[in-house]
Amino acid sequence: MKLQLALDTCNTDEALQIVGEVESSIDIVEIGTPMILEYGMEPVRKVSAQYPNKWVIADTKIMDAGEFEAEIAFNAGASIVSVMGITNDETIKGALKAAKKANGKVLADMMCVTNLEERAKELVELGVDYICVHTAHDVQGTQSPFASLARVQRSVGSKKCAIAGGINKESVNKVIEYNPEVVIVGNGITGQVDKAKVAKTISDILHP
Amino acid sequence: MKLQLALDTCNTDEALQIVGEVESSIDIVEIGTPMILEYGMEPVRKVSAQYPNKWVIADTKIMDAGEFEAEIAFNAGASIVSVMGITNDETIKGALKAAKKANGKVLADMMCVTNLEERAKELVELGVDYICVHTAHDVQGTQSPFASLARVQRSVGSKKCAIAGGINKESVNKVIEYNPEVVIVGNGITGQVDKAKVAKTISDILHP
Repeated sequence: MKLQLALDTCNTDEALQIVGEVESSIDIVEIGTPMILEYGMEPVRKVSAQYPNKWVIADTKIMDAGEFEAEIAFNAGASIVSVMGITNDETIKGALKAAKKANGKVLADMMCVTNLEERAKELVELGVDYICVHTAHDVQGTQSPFASLARVQRSVGSKKCAIAGGINKESVNKVIEYNPEVVIVGNGITGQVDKAKVAKTISDILHP
Repeated sequence: MKLQLALDTCNTDEALQIVGEVESSIDIVEIGTPMILEYGMEPVRKVSAQYPNKWVIADTKIMDAGEFEAEIAFNAGASIVSVMGITNDETIKGALKAAKKANGKVLADMMCVTNLEERAKELVELGVDYICVHTAHDVQGTQSPFASLARVQRSVGSKKCAIAGGINKESVNKVIEYNPEVVIVGNGITGQVDKAKVAKTISDILHP
């Protein structure tokens, strides 16, 4: 299991600082959508340059112009781009084409997908690397991701699964029952006083 | 009918230049998703500062964290933000809350929505200002937006309708039959040698 640190609400300098604090416990750095909206590819460029041994995922949530938009992120140094699993297959294929050229990967965010098993299978057949079960920030009070994670895991297997949305050092104990390849933690690390300590706690749970 | 110029593939300086060329023919400047991915809010900030009489829409295609992400765009000077119509109502409400605070507007992009009439009605009842029928760039060869535009128009009326996706000075003649409030043209203007001339041609068709 890989630990992905999601950075959403900081600026580029703060991102570099936080990654420095937790570096030894994390595998992937996510430059979250709000950061991209504000700063574009700057944080992707700087984090990937300063931490060349970490994968950087640009949470581009691509809906259209798959090849063109994915290229923007790969050209900036991203190892992974995110697409919305709900979008057109042509867009997914475009992002995959860009990934192939860049030797990168594609993660499909399953937010708002209802036919999870079927769509996950289709996406993996298209060549998508990770299927991300994602409880939206705006509905974390009312929805839990575990039932969805179980459905995707049964459909495409643990090695293709990623999970995101409100995960912290407590709920990660439930997550590991499903053995997803990528566990995404944002505020569960960035919102804590001792980020290095909680990142290590979570990493130790993922790698017992 | 308002003419919205969509800028997708240029940098900020080129955007400022193009808007200068077509200023007298357009009502709204769209900073497209690929520009936002690359440059963040910089082009929104600069175009809205340099052209204060134009509305600027940030094509943020918000899927999650509606209030937070919409605020990023409104704080940068956007008059309108885009959300994906397919996303959770909580996210739409968040974007609308940010719009209310900023005295801004929200456009819902209907890409990948299948129950168009029903969802358009729900979105308008939530308070969304424009329902955008959008033929994705990646499927413009195989899908036409007019049947979808007719469905949305019947459901929520012309004044709430926007249309995007491959519109040019020829196809705009078909568009006006539906009298949508906002007509979005990208490459149909930006891909032409004489941008000012084609923008004026399209504007004249919209405002006979």
